[in-house]
Amino acid sequence: MTLEGKRVRIKAKGRIFEGIVMPSFTDCLVLKLDNGYNVGFKDYEVLEILEEKPISFPKPKIEKKEELPNVMIISTGGTIASKVDYRTGAVTSQFTAEEIVGDVPELLDVCNVDAMLLYNILSENMKPKHWIELAREVYKAIKKGYEGVIVTHGTDTMHYSASALAFMLSTPIPIVFTGAQRSSDRPSSDASMNVFCSAVTAVSDLGEVVVVMHGTTSDDYCLIHRGVKVRKCHTSRRDAFRTINYTPLGKVHYPSGEIEWIGERFKRGERELELRDKLEEKCVLIKFFPGLSPDILEYYYERGYRGFVLEGTGLGHVSTDWVDTIKRIAEDSLIVMTSQCLWGRVCCRVYDTGRYLLRAGVIEGEDMLPEVALVKVMWLLGNYDLEEAKKLVKENLVGEITPSTRYDYS
Amino acid sequence: MTLEGKRVRIKAKGRIFEGIVMPSFTDCLVLKLDNGYNVGFKDYEVLEILEEKPISFPKPKIEKKEELPNVMIISTGGTIASKVDYRTGAVTSQFTAEEIVGDVPELLDVCNVDAMLLYNILSENMKPKHWIELAREVYKAIKKGYEGVIVTHGTDTMHYSASALAFMLSTPIPIVFTGAQRSSDRPSSDASMNVFCSAVTAVSDLGEVVVVMHGTTSDDYCLIHRGVKVRKCHTSRRDAFRTINYTPLGKVHYPSGEIEWIGERFKRGERELELRDKLEEKCVLIKFFPGLSPDILEYYYERGYRGFVLEGTGLGHVSTDWVDTIKRIAEDSLIVMTSQCLWGRVCCRVYDTGRYLLRAGVIEGEDMLPEVALVKVMWLLGNYDLEEAKKLVKENLVGEITPSTRYDYS
Repeated sequence: MTLEGKRVRIKAKGRIFEGIVMPSFTDCLVLKLDNGYNVGFKDYEVLEILEEKPISFPKPKIEKKEELPNVMIISTGGTIASKVDYRTGAVTSQFTAEEIVGDVPELLDVCNVDAMLLYNILSENMKPKHWIELAREVYKAIKKGYEGVIVTHGTDTMHYSASALAFMLSTPIPIVFTGAQRSSDRPSSDASMNVFCSAVTAVSDLGEVVVVMHGTTSDDYCLIHRGVKVRKCHTSRRDAFRTINYTPLGKVHYPSGEIEWIGERFKRGERELELRDKLEEKCVLIKFFPGLSPDILEYYYERGYRGFVLEGTGLGHVSTDWVDTIKRIAEDSLIVMTSQCLWGRVCCRVYDTGRYLLRAGVIEGEDMLPEVALVKVMWLLGNYDLEEAKKLVKENLVGEITPSTRYDYS
Repeated sequence: MTLEGKRVRIKAKGRIFEGIVMPSFTDCLVLKLDNGYNVGFKDYEVLEILEEKPISFPKPKIEKKEELPNVMIISTGGTIASKVDYRTGAVTSQFTAEEIVGDVPELLDVCNVDAMLLYNILSENMKPKHWIELAREVYKAIKKGYEGVIVTHGTDTMHYSASALAFMLSTPIPIVFTGAQRSSDRPSSDASMNVFCSAVTAVSDLGEVVVVMHGTTSDDYCLIHRGVKVRKCHTSRRDAFRTINYTPLGKVHYPSGEIEWIGERFKRGERELELRDKLEEKCVLIKFFPGLSPDILEYYYERGYRGFVLEGTGLGHVSTDWVDTIKRIAEDSLIVMTSQCLWGRVCCRVYDTGRYLLRAGVIEGEDMLPEVALVKVMWLLGNYDLEEAKKLVKENLVGEITPSTRYDYS
């Protein structure tokens, strides 16, 4: 006898709980309580079935409509694919992409959806090797003819992964990263709207890697952020993602699904499909602070690291006692200066310290985010020789550097 | 024969320059060109004196007015105290505090000013030992009876220094950090207005360490930021400083000098003067990124470091393969988690990874900025035993943690 959809009273953890039994894909009982929260139980005793007639949960219609474009959803885990863990009470990744589609039936008016579960990990556990596998899967999907790809991802490192794919994949179609700040079994979840707006973006006239997430704390629109110009700027708010040193590429209004384009974008079909999926993992991002010894550079250098992104102060500085160490390692390393200010452009020529750093071999990272510069350095050292990498790191390859003549973003 | 104030034509660096000879405190000739910029020359030949009658530069009136409060200005260097370096053409620190006063004569309607030159260094070269010396000088000034202290400082690490003083000095009077994003010999300089607004703040009903800098790109008001809640958020804009996870304490309107208080503040006389100026320098801030190995923790631990501030992702995460290393070093270390999101509060109890980190011995840094948490850890380990430090790091000591019940800042 299945309990699914029935209202029950159970005893667990020495307490009494009452609620509706949710569909579960594990061996635990998931109850939706009257306050809207879902709680999972491994050990429980059913005391009473309060309503025999089960509530039926709508199943997504999965027949494909010929007139609609085909979109692939690749699930990598994260909050958007998570429910409460019955063992700990904490939120953990558990759901498959198919279940997400089940949660957002209005998706099926926008596109035909295929879904695959690539990973089921929280994004703080993503590593460069995952970026590579993900890029290959997306590449395969584009080869197969999908008109858009959605990657559901934990929000913690979504901007790192989006950057990685932006460098590894030259894409003629939209590759849309999305996630949720609140898990989809919570009443305040942002998951459905983010997935819907991502689907709209995935079938739009766009040809690059973007992040689509809530634009405000209300459910009025999502922003389309360029993958190499975005970072997570709040620990918990639904509108945590912000475009930095550029404008968002566009807004997706909700629930209308209307797109309002803002920034200049790569359009559908503008670039040929190409995969360059090598990454040099021995690269490091170092945030400078007063008193930090330059020995840390040598520590990594001795271990074979040749890619260094410095998150310096202000216009791009570290203390002058770093100059000698930088000189020693610069010849066969790529050392890029970014700023912990995050907003604005690095310019090392204004002050003495910066000029010493440039002469020692540091390269200005223009207005690149430190995180993006790190991923770019990994990618450049994986695919080019050092001299070429040193030249390319200052060039705008996929929108990661805003031309300095655009004073509206300075 | 002094050339000061005369218009001359000179030959230097193979070119001809024309301008007015500025007062100079070094052995170089400083010319104010007609475009408003000052240029310094070490080797030059005076070709012609175009106007014999010198322009006289107004000297500040330095007679003290009994009815005005006394303020001490301590100069530490930085752009606010800099001119163009004649050797390199770059901006370098050169001026004394007295010269700043000469540039801002309206200061003398607000307070009587004494000035001292403590350092002449760009702020990327400040180190914890400088914070200690600075705290001692400020302490002496308060002891002597000054009603306010202004510290002029390079903007790059001003927020680190302000944090350090906030923890080291319990102060009954305002300690105001200010600086400039554009040097005072440039027409667009923000120096004068920042110094004026700082003087107004220094004589106000305030009793804590603050940063006073332009609030917008116009010259309409400065913001008063709590020293432990502010960071530099733009490489070059004049309104680069932003209060994070709180509101600014107030606005100083310009040129009226009227103060509009906003956030809750420590008031004048609210706290007793006390100096606790020890700092444990063997502390490190580590920004996590996907793929960063936890070996870096052991590297520092083996070198005697016991203070670790992690700049994690999202709500406060590093990848789960860090847990074992953290466990090994946590017993005799202080390990604090902050977020690279910068905005929002750390909460490690929501996801599995965070719970593992807490069990391993990580302490949640609440809504502290990573930079502030680092300074706090240095100060706690310098002044308390480890157990006490572990307790105090989570407590709000000087406004560095906003109570979580204040949802308006969440």
